[in-house]
Amino acid sequence: MAEELRIGVVGTGAIGRTHIERINTKLQGGRVVAVSDINADFAKKIADQYGCKFFADGEEMIQSPDVDAIIVTTIDAYHEQYVTAAIKAGKYVFCEKPLAAEQSGCKRIVEAEIAGGKQLVQVGFMRRYDPGYRQLRKLVEKHTYGEPLMLHCAHRNYEVDETYDTPMAVENSMIHEIDVLRWLLGEDYATAEVVFPKKTKYAHKNLQDPQIMILTTKSGVRIDVEAFVNCHYGYDIKCEVCCEEGILNLPEPSNAMVRSNASRITPICRDWSERFVEAYNVEIQEWINASKEGRVDGPTAWDGYVASITAAAASKARDTQSVVKIDMDKQPNFYQK
Amino acid sequence: MAEELRIGVVGTGAIGRTHIERINTKLQGGRVVAVSDINADFAKKIADQYGCKFFADGEEMIQSPDVDAIIVTTIDAYHEQYVTAAIKAGKYVFCEKPLAAEQSGCKRIVEAEIAGGKQLVQVGFMRRYDPGYRQLRKLVEKHTYGEPLMLHCAHRNYEVDETYDTPMAVENSMIHEIDVLRWLLGEDYATAEVVFPKKTKYAHKNLQDPQIMILTTKSGVRIDVEAFVNCHYGYDIKCEVCCEEGILNLPEPSNAMVRSNASRITPICRDWSERFVEAYNVEIQEWINASKEGRVDGPTAWDGYVASITAAAASKARDTQSVVKIDMDKQPNFYQK
Amino acid sequence: MAEELRIGVVGTGAIGRTHIERINTKLQGGRVVAVSDINADFAKKIADQYGCKFFADGEEMIQSPDVDAIIVTTIDAYHEQYVTAAIKAGKYVFCEKPLAAEQSGCKRIVEAEIAGGKQLVQVGFMRRYDPGYRQLRKLVEKHTYGEPLMLHCAHRNYEVDETYDTPMAVENSMIHEIDVLRWLLGEDYATAEVVFPKKTKYAHKNLQDPQIMILTTKSGVRIDVEAFVNCHYGYDIKCEVCCEEGILNLPEPSNAMVRSNASRITPICRDWSERFVEAYNVEIQEWINASKEGRVDGPTAWDGYVASITAAAASKARDTQSVVKIDMDKQPNFYQK
Amino acid sequence: MAEELRIGVVGTGAIGRTHIERINTKLQGGRVVAVSDINADFAKKIADQYGCKFFADGEEMIQSPDVDAIIVTTIDAYHEQYVTAAIKAGKYVFCEKPLAAEQSGCKRIVEAEIAGGKQLVQVGFMRRYDPGYRQLRKLVEKHTYGEPLMLHCAHRNYEVDETYDTPMAVENSMIHEIDVLRWLLGEDYATAEVVFPKKTKYAHKNLQDPQIMILTTKSGVRIDVEAFVNCHYGYDIKCEVCCEEGILNLPEPSNAMVRSNASRITPICRDWSERFVEAYNVEIQEWINASKEGRVDGPTAWDGYVASITAAAASKARDTQSVVKIDMDKQPNFYQK
Repeated sequence: MAEELRIGVVGTGAIGRTHIERINTKLQGGRVVAVSDINADFAKKIADQYGCKFFADGEEMIQSPDVDAIIVTTIDAYHEQYVTAAIKAGKYVFCEKPLAAEQSGCKRIVEAEIAGGKQLVQVGFMRRYDPGYRQLRKLVEKHTYGEPLMLHCAHRNYEVDETYDTPMAVENSMIHEIDVLRWLLGEDYATAEVVFPKKTKYAHKNLQDPQIMILTTKSGVRIDVEAFVNCHYGYDIKCEVCCEEGILNLPEPSNAMVRSNASRITPICRDWSERFVEAYNVEIQEWINASKEGRVDGPTAWDGYVASITAAAASKARDTQSVVKIDMDKQPNFYQK
Repeated sequence: MAEELRIGVVGTGAIGRTHIERINTKLQGGRVVAVSDINADFAKKIADQYGCKFFADGEEMIQSPDVDAIIVTTIDAYHEQYVTAAIKAGKYVFCEKPLAAEQSGCKRIVEAEIAGGKQLVQVGFMRRYDPGYRQLRKLVEKHTYGEPLMLHCAHRNYEVDETYDTPMAVENSMIHEIDVLRWLLGEDYATAEVVFPKKTKYAHKNLQDPQIMILTTKSGVRIDVEAFVNCHYGYDIKCEVCCEEGILNLPEPSNAMVRSNASRITPICRDWSERFVEAYNVEIQEWINASKEGRVDGPTAWDGYVASITAAAASKARDTQSVVKIDMDKQPNFYQK
Repeated sequence: MAEELRIGVVGTGAIGRTHIERINTKLQGGRVVAVSDINADFAKKIADQYGCKFFADGEEMIQSPDVDAIIVTTIDAYHEQYVTAAIKAGKYVFCEKPLAAEQSGCKRIVEAEIAGGKQLVQVGFMRRYDPGYRQLRKLVEKHTYGEPLMLHCAHRNYEVDETYDTPMAVENSMIHEIDVLRWLLGEDYATAEVVFPKKTKYAHKNLQDPQIMILTTKSGVRIDVEAFVNCHYGYDIKCEVCCEEGILNLPEPSNAMVRSNASRITPICRDWSERFVEAYNVEIQEWINASKEGRVDGPTAWDGYVASITAAAASKARDTQSVVKIDMDKQPNFYQK
Repeated sequence: MAEELRIGVVGTGAIGRTHIERINTKLQGGRVVAVSDINADFAKKIADQYGCKFFADGEEMIQSPDVDAIIVTTIDAYHEQYVTAAIKAGKYVFCEKPLAAEQSGCKRIVEAEIAGGKQLVQVGFMRRYDPGYRQLRKLVEKHTYGEPLMLHCAHRNYEVDETYDTPMAVENSMIHEIDVLRWLLGEDYATAEVVFPKKTKYAHKNLQDPQIMILTTKSGVRIDVEAFVNCHYGYDIKCEVCCEEGILNLPEPSNAMVRSNASRITPICRDWSERFVEAYNVEIQEWINASKEGRVDGPTAWDGYVASITAAAASKARDTQSVVKIDMDKQPNFYQK
């Protein structure tokens, strides 16, 4: 398809708008031509700004013959509805994580997609597009340093506001590690555990911070992920893969080192959007390219479902302060690559 | 202009093709629609591959009403001819460095552009688009660490073949530093000198390698640039800006550090195209954007001329093994921003 | 005391000899004047080499009026006997870790020392003398970055031979972390756990490698220590202290970085003795100084006893694959500083 | 000689006292037993503090049968007098750099030592004892990365007071590089040049700061040394050795990296005594050891003379702003190792 992919976006909140901006001013081969949002006034403004058509009804937009593919960036509760509508319309759909608010919703999406007979859904796990994680994956896949045995990871935010409570550490923050580490290692998880180190004075009363999530894979690889969302120094992501013959480290972002004030000083990002801006660009560009070529090559609905199952197990582990086994069906042949 | 910028490329050698590839598959807002090359057979193949029109005559392509803007990627000897043709046609033109093979050619281009009354020419100094240099420039411009006093730079290639001789260190390699450091410091050069350290055993007989070029600016900043094009370890670019209250270092590319074999090991690029791939993308994207908005905001014909004067002075300094003063006219008001 | 401290060494194996060498050729204020070992032939050679008197009977040496202070570097099983003899003789004694082979032996030593009414015993936990750990401790003590909340540590050896079995990871390797982290944090442990990640192919059948020991302190700080004794890349010690406002890292040893072979390469030690050579020197020098001034200022018998209790708990946790509470008496006033 | 080396110190200013302190409380095998200084009151206090004998007359102390070896730490103007007295007395003498205030004085010392028929003099160039420089030298000597071709060095102080004027950059600061780089490369210098980059606002009127000294060796290696003594960030020493197959960097001191305040921060020393404390300890310990074994194995009088010739050439180059050839006699057989 030489022409541009005509994209409709449901949900014009912050993340929706950054995707519209990136598609219409930076990436190639696609154009956001239609938008919808329950906040109609706001969505109309966005429509005007980018020369898109406004649809009061998201499902109507999804069915419109003027729209080739869909991006779902509503609040989580509406993900299932619009992804399902896109499947019914036979259109490629990119849905921000999580695929659905509940594990059951994810399962229904998987079933609908299989029933429809064609892979159409991609989930927005952008870490897979980060150049650093891609370097790590290449080394792991090629067994350059033998088998991975342990992973030590950290997910740190400068601070969070009072709406961020204890469950969000797994469900909103470490969900990224849940997906990207499974992709990095190429295998599913066996158990989950969440433990509570000493609480920082910067955490409000509804938030246990930091937390450590421990996952094991089916082959026995042990992963610890520290979530520390009031670390009070910056936005920082670490991933250390301990293999049989070498230890691999996710690269630090490329920033100018300055010698001043009796120190060598290298800046750390303050914000996730700055840290992963390139990953978002690659993610959406590759989604546009694949959609035009008629395939899904990013995280699938199955990946979204598995992340949801794993996060639910980790949440249960946290609430019960025990180790929880992760049970899931075998990946359907439909999703084999 | 909502439509795509229709671009004609003169010169379909290696660098020309990477620009066609990048414009037609990665960047936004432009499309290469026409190509020309003295090697007609090869150019026709490229034209077929990218769905472009082939022109036997480059000047005819430049004048074609189906072409909005021009990229000149011929061998150096033809730069002047095609850039001048683009100026006559009133079209934006991006010319790979150098602007012209000789200083006199650069001057004629500047005069033609001024005579035409409109800035149209951009020269391909892509370092200005590298995120690392941009970080340095922001710190220098804001005087975050006081005035710059000295710069220590290095330009290292793994190796070069026998066609690379002594003059090319200034004219092909360090020409990049000549442009980017002038842009970084925001001032012109006063003197040039080139000295010869001990020669590496890997340099063939027509090549003095390494060389050190020393530039001073009008305000007295002293710059040393090491060109070491058979360094036999990788492609590596260093830039250290010594200011009154801090020392700034060009960042290293972001690569995964591995602990193995009794060492901490971080990869270094082997190749310039890998090191500056992002800079090239940003350069051409910003050129497309600016051309569509009717302005030149990258390195101008004047910048190309100044680089040419400076390189000529450095070459004379090298050949005479003396310090050469750099004389140039004041920048015409035409080029003031 | 201006004169040299006259030292008797019981046990002239590898570590004993390095202490003799260091005292008699490098440090100040002490001299090894007597040695004893059950391998009399070997001990006599050492005695000749360093001009010491040989004693067939270690206890006799300890009581000799020509010996001011004792170093115990026998195999673990004899530590208690000779340390107790030194206490009885009223002489300062430095005993390599562990203080005694069993927890009960440590306790008897503590009781004997208290009964004797004077602190005389120092245990050889040399990490406390490493300049890097001392930097960390200063930052922790001053609360420069708030309270410590979590520690992530690693203890990696290039490889071990077949005599090194599963229990030794706690009892011989991580015993160092048990002591130094308690000293770093200034508080006792509450629980211990030991888990088994995927086993490396380089571990023989009697060795689970890697292992992760998890300790919590009474105030809730959570510590994970990875022991990976066949890491197959070098000898490497990591300690990351996550505080409320900053993350502190044990420094890497100071080694020359080389750019070669498309990489930036910094050597890592292959061997613990190379990594901690300076710590050993400082440890023994400070012990000599303190002994001459009539005090113990290094790790006490109580510290050795606490390390033993903690290691026993961790071993039980490992064998039962459960979390084990660590119970211990309050530190006697006798050991308050 | 099993007994302690009995040392007399002439000159009890700051550096003299640190040597007394280090010998009498930290190092092994020597003891400062006598001191002398033209400030008799002060010297007497020092004598009392360390239990030394005070001599009103330095030469008398040097001749005393109770003194085995001499340390000269007076002001530069008296170095020649006391070193010569030690030679006459046939005693080993360690003289802080410079060997003598003038090149002619150095020459007279060399002649006196040769006339005496025995090497006795060592000059205090402590950089040769820094573990980092020793790592570099081993790599250079073994030709691990081929021949050295260029060196890029920097010598930076946080700030200097008004007594520090333009000549001191060569004569007091870069004199260290003059010695250590000659030792590192194992060859003599051919030419010297000193150039002036833009002056920092922090330099007072009698001080050109920064300066760059350029040395070439007889085989053609080119060295640039930046002296920037008001760099306003710390005390920092850099040495990059560019070889045919790799670039070697003097290691940074081993300091704890902290992540805080949106940065990775590693401390830099503020002061030279902190940076080179270990080098001083090794220097004096090795001098004591060698003196007791009857040899000089540190920098010789000849090395001190060569440093003086080179510094004089660099000073002339600076004052005349020209390249100055360095002429010197062949090293006498007397000094061959």
